Amino acid sequence: MRATVIYGERDVRLEEVPDPILSTGGDAIVRVVAACVCGSDLWPYRGVQPTDEPHRIGHEFVGIVEEIGADVSTIKVGDFVIAPFYDCDNTCVNCRNGVSTSCLNGGWWGSDDKLGGFADGAQGEKVRVPHADGSLVATPAQPTDAQVPGLLTLADVMGTGHHAAVSAGVTTGSTVVVVGDGAVGLCGIIAAKRLGASRIVAMSRNPERQAVAREFGATDIVEERGDAGVARIREIFDGIGADCVLECVGTKESMEQAIASARPGGMVGYVGVPTGGPIEVRPLFSRNVGLNGGVASVRGYVEELLPEVLSGAINPGRVFDLELPLSEVAEAYAAMDERRAIKVLLRP
Amino acid sequence: MRATVIYGERDVRLEEVPDPILSTGGDAIVRVVAACVCGSDLWPYRGVQPTDEPHRIGHEFVGIVEEIGADVSTIKVGDFVIAPFYDCDNTCVNCRNGVSTSCLNGGWWGSDDKLGGFADGAQGEKVRVPHADGSLVATPAQPTDAQVPGLLTLADVMGTGHHAAVSAGVTTGSTVVVVGDGAVGLCGIIAAKRLGASRIVAMSRNPERQAVAREFGATDIVEERGDAGVARIREIFDGIGADCVLECVGTKESMEQAIASARPGGMVGYVGVPTGGPIEVRPLFSRNVGLNGGVASVRGYVEELLPEVLSGAINPGRVFDLELPLSEVAEAYAAMDERRAIKVLLRP
Repeated sequence: MRATVIYGERDVRLEEVPDPILSTGGDAIVRVVAACVCGSDLWPYRGVQPTDEPHRIGHEFVGIVEEIGADVSTIKVGDFVIAPFYDCDNTCVNCRNGVSTSCLNGGWWGSDDKLGGFADGAQGEKVRVPHADGSLVATPAQPTDAQVPGLLTLADVMGTGHHAAVSAGVTTGSTVVVVGDGAVGLCGIIAAKRLGASRIVAMSRNPERQAVAREFGATDIVEERGDAGVARIREIFDGIGADCVLECVGTKESMEQAIASARPGGMVGYVGVPTGGPIEVRPLFSRNVGLNGGVASVRGYVEELLPEVLSGAINPGRVFDLELPLSEVAEAYAAMDERRAIKVLLRP
Repeated sequence: MRATVIYGERDVRLEEVPDPILSTGGDAIVRVVAACVCGSDLWPYRGVQPTDEPHRIGHEFVGIVEEIGADVSTIKVGDFVIAPFYDCDNTCVNCRNGVSTSCLNGGWWGSDDKLGGFADGAQGEKVRVPHADGSLVATPAQPTDAQVPGLLTLADVMGTGHHAAVSAGVTTGSTVVVVGDGAVGLCGIIAAKRLGASRIVAMSRNPERQAVAREFGATDIVEERGDAGVARIREIFDGIGADCVLECVGTKESMEQAIASARPGGMVGYVGVPTGGPIEVRPLFSRNVGLNGGVASVRGYVEELLPEVLSGAINPGRVFDLELPLSEVAEAYAAMDERRAIKVLLRP
């Protein structure tokens, strides 16, 4: 089959690789219907994270189950399934605590799993899924083609935006600021709205993303950044800041922006992969601003969000503003890197 | 009157200073019945925080109201009152949000207040209290002498330990680790127990403090620190760590200990004044460990905790293991500094 391999900075290639095979009774082989490029894929693509050896890449996919192991009981051949951006058994103590990204037996796509060896990257034609029962969620029926992008967001960005909102404690009446206008930040707006936020400020300078933010439920747009951004946010919210801030970038600047935008006693829900180095505790301590979040346990959110995606009550698939065949995966990365696209959907 | 002045490293002196006078209609003058030395007073005493100019010190006191301004309505002359370690109007937006340490109009003992000028330090004979209605809570009756130490803990350490527990989300059945065996950490044990914790580990190497920890509700003692401490904590809690960790020290080592002791998805409630510099975000992000807390809004906790102190249901006054006349304030600091006492009560 064909799958994407990253070789180094700005060098991703679609190559022939061995087809995956069932290696444990708990496995499934899934034929990928749609995959995509994640903002976090850009860290190695840009060379911010070095690529020591060529390796498979991609961690978001939906597809059709082609084969299952003898022990698989919750999904069957032919099911359309959503995979989270990691695999998990959904039974260990961490999974039971709602933190399936810390599954004691789980792993990451495109690397050796704790169960049965290599688990394929998602930007390819097929994936071996260890812990198929724990990881995969089947849709109640075969989705329409138009539903596929929304379902694909449940693999990562919609669940991750939701995790930011949940971690920030968004509830009925909360005032919210979203730092980051990438796919996760935009999905965070959807999440904040459906959790009952009374006012949602999107921090964005990009007119197209501002438009999506408004569609998703943002009530205000703030273009300023740094001290001017903080001043504008405090002006909007009683001079003190917002109850909840969703940090969806991961740089030092975005984290500082988020912390300073929260009101005393407020909470920052952060999901941006931290690339900014250590942070000062004093600005948190002196104003009782909390910091909560991390790598999102999206598997646990699928059941809650799936019906709303299928019904169209929420439309996170809107973040895909470019669709390419898998053969053009290199162009997909370039379009994301150059911010020509919010998020690129790939069809094998 | 006499009041304590800090001059520099290991140099505190009791001196004659002007008596406080009412300077606004919202003021009260309180005659101090008991004050004490705080762990945070040791930072300037040890020279960790430089003292550029001699200044008044002390921020915990209880006493009798001697005079009130014309606008004071909730307390009266002769009342026995508890003061939080700061003053606040208890009406501004931050106070209404439960974060009275960020009161828009409040201030700190021993410095110029936003209302009416200088507010005295607590380690003295009298204190001018701005925002008397917002800051002071009167006891329903004159307390017995034996009740005074417990009431004094509501000015800071009991409320601060409670804030650590609340910030860490301690609730019925929570597993808890307390980092720090000072007065605040010990009060954190009381707080965790009364909030329903099922198991409470106190990290302490000191036999006397271990005994108090047990009295207060600790079910386990861990003497190890660093990696060995983390290994021991994880061994106790399913191999993963505790639901809630109370960080009651403020050093880099204690914060790292606290973060590593929380289970994936757990929460660190921290109240130790941060002296350890910046912290890494990755260890929080990768395991979804949250960080919540800060300078405790103890004013808001007095009504909840006061009845239990008066009834003896909780006995936080037990943290005072040395009582000295105010004239021996220098010895009080030395005893705390040398860890000869957990906490020293001073009587003017």
